[in-house]
Amino acid sequence: MNAHAATLTVQTRGKGTTEITDEVGRIVRESGIATGTATVFLQHTSASLVIYENADPSARADLHAFFERLVPEDGGGYVHTAEGGDDTTSHLRMALTRTGETVPVVRGALALGTWQGIYVFEHRRAAHRRTVVVTVVGV
Amino acid sequence: MNAHAATLTVQTRGKGTTEITDEVGRIVRESGIATGTATVFLQHTSASLVIYENADPSARADLHAFFERLVPEDGGGYVHTAEGGDDTTSHLRMALTRTGETVPVVRGALALGTWQGIYVFEHRRAAHRRTVVVTVVGV
Amino acid sequence: MNAHAATLTVQTRGKGTTEITDEVGRIVRESGIATGTATVFLQHTSASLVIYENADPSARADLHAFFERLVPEDGGGYVHTAEGGDDTTSHLRMALTRTGETVPVVRGALALGTWQGIYVFEHRRAAHRRTVVVTVVGV
Repeated sequence: MNAHAATLTVQTRGKGTTEITDEVGRIVRESGIATGTATVFLQHTSASLVIYENADPSARADLHAFFERLVPEDGGGYVHTAEGGDDTTSHLRMALTRTGETVPVVRGALALGTWQGIYVFEHRRAAHRRTVVVTVVGV
Repeated sequence: MNAHAATLTVQTRGKGTTEITDEVGRIVRESGIATGTATVFLQHTSASLVIYENADPSARADLHAFFERLVPEDGGGYVHTAEGGDDTTSHLRMALTRTGETVPVVRGALALGTWQGIYVFEHRRAAHRRTVVVTVVGV
Repeated sequence: MNAHAATLTVQTRGKGTTEITDEVGRIVRESGIATGTATVFLQHTSASLVIYENADPSARADLHAFFERLVPEDGGGYVHTAEGGDDTTSHLRMALTRTGETVPVVRGALALGTWQGIYVFEHRRAAHRRTVVVTVVGV
């Protein structure tokens, strides 16, 4: 049995999604673990971790646009706006999506489906450096 | 310490929820693991994995209807529609719910609450065969 | 390798969020596990587990208000109302947020970001006693 931890730094370019599937896969291979789980965890409350369709970029354009409508920056009557109009909306979009994903590890690799990519979903307008912690546990 | 992986195939009947709690519980028992976690992971981006109230089927009728309203097929202005009007809406409904759940294993069984069932939530109109990977890790 | 399970009882005061970060951290320390994962799982379908900004309480006021608007008790046309107007809305709010979180354990502690707190998000109007199961797995 083994457990392995590593950290990724992800540079975002403001609102939108940045794929990290390959980087997570590399950490799984480095762990030497054949069967178990890889937990991918974003250490932030104004960005999300999501699994999304990774074949057609227009799919993610719809994702970005949908969250602008569902959690609009204007007209929400928010009280937590100390860091601007994209402050509380970032937290709400994060709560509606995910902070971590635990992906099975089978035969030494992430057991993702054909079209599944792992993304950091930035909710702030400005570019940010985001930290992702990955732990691989298994045998 | 041990780790165990298995795969379930779930036949959906188009939009709606299909319970898989018993099948996941059987994999946990087969693993022989007494304390740890069971990670249940759906390898698709147009269906979700959700935990939901399993006593009264009308609860799930409200779930299905709510997502039709929150992420409507008509009027969304979506650009990713190559596979039809239920294409991007399936991905959005998936992002708003979950792809995997990690459930504690205690005394050799899933530590679910009394009313918690594990469901595959199909978002496509057509029936699909869906693959769920389960890994059990612990001692 | 090791695995450790413990249970927390959380008293809520009706709708709103109750932080449990310190209690989960204590279980991680008691486990003696240095590297691995802590799975925090709420055994209920009318409350959620969420990670949220823990610095400014007004952030959570926006969270509570947002879900009142996104999943309103009135006008939803719900059919599952046996336990009142906050019955099906509680399940829907739970499905839109989370039931469990798996947080990496690094150097014997929860690898949370600076502003991340773990909360039980109560969706029923009445106060409830909620059970959270925590399993720590690793080396």
